[in-house]
Amino acid sequence: MMDTLQTIGETALIKRLVGRLATGRDVVVGPGDDCAVVRAGDEDWLLTSDPIIESVHFTAEAEPSQIGHKAVARALSDIAAMGGAPRWAVVDVVAPGDTDVERLEAIYDGMAATAAAHGLSIVGGDVACGPALELHVFAVGSVPRDGAVLRSGTAPGDAIFVTGELGGSRIGTHHLTFEPRLREGQWLREGGWATAMCDISDGLSTDLRHLTEASDVGAELQIDAIPCSEAAMSADDPVTHALGDGEDFELLLTVPADRENDLLNAWSRELSVACTRIGTVTASGQVVGVDAARTHTTLSATGYDHFFGDRS
Amino acid sequence: MMDTLQTIGETALIKRLVGRLATGRDVVVGPGDDCAVVRAGDEDWLLTSDPIIESVHFTAEAEPSQIGHKAVARALSDIAAMGGAPRWAVVDVVAPGDTDVERLEAIYDGMAATAAAHGLSIVGGDVACGPALELHVFAVGSVPRDGAVLRSGTAPGDAIFVTGELGGSRIGTHHLTFEPRLREGQWLREGGWATAMCDISDGLSTDLRHLTEASDVGAELQIDAIPCSEAAMSADDPVTHALGDGEDFELLLTVPADRENDLLNAWSRELSVACTRIGTVTASGQVVGVDAARTHTTLSATGYDHFFGDRS
Repeated sequence: MMDTLQTIGETALIKRLVGRLATGRDVVVGPGDDCAVVRAGDEDWLLTSDPIIESVHFTAEAEPSQIGHKAVARALSDIAAMGGAPRWAVVDVVAPGDTDVERLEAIYDGMAATAAAHGLSIVGGDVACGPALELHVFAVGSVPRDGAVLRSGTAPGDAIFVTGELGGSRIGTHHLTFEPRLREGQWLREGGWATAMCDISDGLSTDLRHLTEASDVGAELQIDAIPCSEAAMSADDPVTHALGDGEDFELLLTVPADRENDLLNAWSRELSVACTRIGTVTASGQVVGVDAARTHTTLSATGYDHFFGDRS
Repeated sequence: MMDTLQTIGETALIKRLVGRLATGRDVVVGPGDDCAVVRAGDEDWLLTSDPIIESVHFTAEAEPSQIGHKAVARALSDIAAMGGAPRWAVVDVVAPGDTDVERLEAIYDGMAATAAAHGLSIVGGDVACGPALELHVFAVGSVPRDGAVLRSGTAPGDAIFVTGELGGSRIGTHHLTFEPRLREGQWLREGGWATAMCDISDGLSTDLRHLTEASDVGAELQIDAIPCSEAAMSADDPVTHALGDGEDFELLLTVPADRENDLLNAWSRELSVACTRIGTVTASGQVVGVDAARTHTTLSATGYDHFFGDRS
């Protein structure tokens, strides 16, 4: 039988495609992290691309300025997850011929406002006619040489933290209005706090697995410690929902056990977003959840897969 | 009446969208040239994005490896048009869930081969489910500081040249198999030959207008000098066809009149692609064609517009 994208899913697809690419000079980190990292001059540069597509990432009824915000903020969240500073972006727009120009202008106003608020210059792009409205934001960020915080740096014993609150993003409008955690990501990098970091775009259970696989470790998650958003609280099982809901765009990070208290003290003095300890990195290779009664459950990746759809 | 993309067209759309963007630090050239130019340490970088969409830029029957080649080569052609060297790219793939994985792998093999042949590293990207197969290639090139050849540098009296042969790209397979003129673009930049340059993606008449508008000049085109491809020769009126056909991906450039012969001599010694003088830059603000009988005709932009469609 022919393999199609919906029979193999997003993760297997990416593995099969990425294996065909050769990377050359000046590539520090190739495919597989929040951004690629390339070396030029005294700095390292973060390259990321993020598509949003009508009926997949936003509905036709969504506020145009929020669509523009989301398009840019997703790329900024990837840069935040490496501890980087946003620099430049180019944007591809695909749209049907009957698209209202004023709607597209309002989307651009949203992109421009979010870009300007975070020091990102949108310097070009391209437009093409296609069947659905799409925005593809290609962004470049920068970090000091060897400064990028990768997914692959954690070790057993490290504490696992998450910023903000999880879940309910796609029930409500959080997925359209979230703030990329740029300040927090840069602060974590500057202080050398995070041994590994990624953003939560596919759901905590899926993104934690990305991080543990990249670092060749496991994790024990304290289920009752997961900070659930008010929107998640309206779900039948808020924690299960928060584990699987995508598009939180919070940071997931690990910190050496002996710096855990220092982190929480420094964080509370300098940053206003919540930062919560939700578990511990283990050597097991498994991701398990532990509840208040110390019952262990193996957690499967329940987050969003572009070709399987929502598995939560 | 509501303005839609197909009532205002690509050029007016881009003007309306670009006017909403603010550019910040380190931006040398914003929207409107083949690439944006940003300053990164000791170098200038070229940023470009190019989408290709099934049924717009290629058919479902096209050879997968050629689809991949085209996706990458379009971005490389933009870098060539600034005299740059390719460095890194990230790729967004949009595809329906029932897409054959092997077809996508063959497309990636085509992308990888073309990227490797030109020193471009594909370092990441993203995949998403959408209604049509699309590839968005975001590429970064580099030039020495202040070295990028822009569209805006020509002056009245400069000679207009074009590389290769024009027309017939979309009748045949040239649009899928063309070679980006990277070597020629870099050679022109290194020798300081070109006062202005762009690639021909929308058709000679349209791209010449882009160049003259950016430089605030006009042009007199020697109609009989336009080098028509063999495929263009099969059209009823080869020259009109060559003026309007898009996706030639040749270079269009201007050279000071007093260096014209030196250019042709040096070119013939060092490069194998044809380079043909096709006209002269004028102060008039008009683009006119002159035939063998010295009859003048004002040329309108007949090239491809993504929302008007083919006007040739």
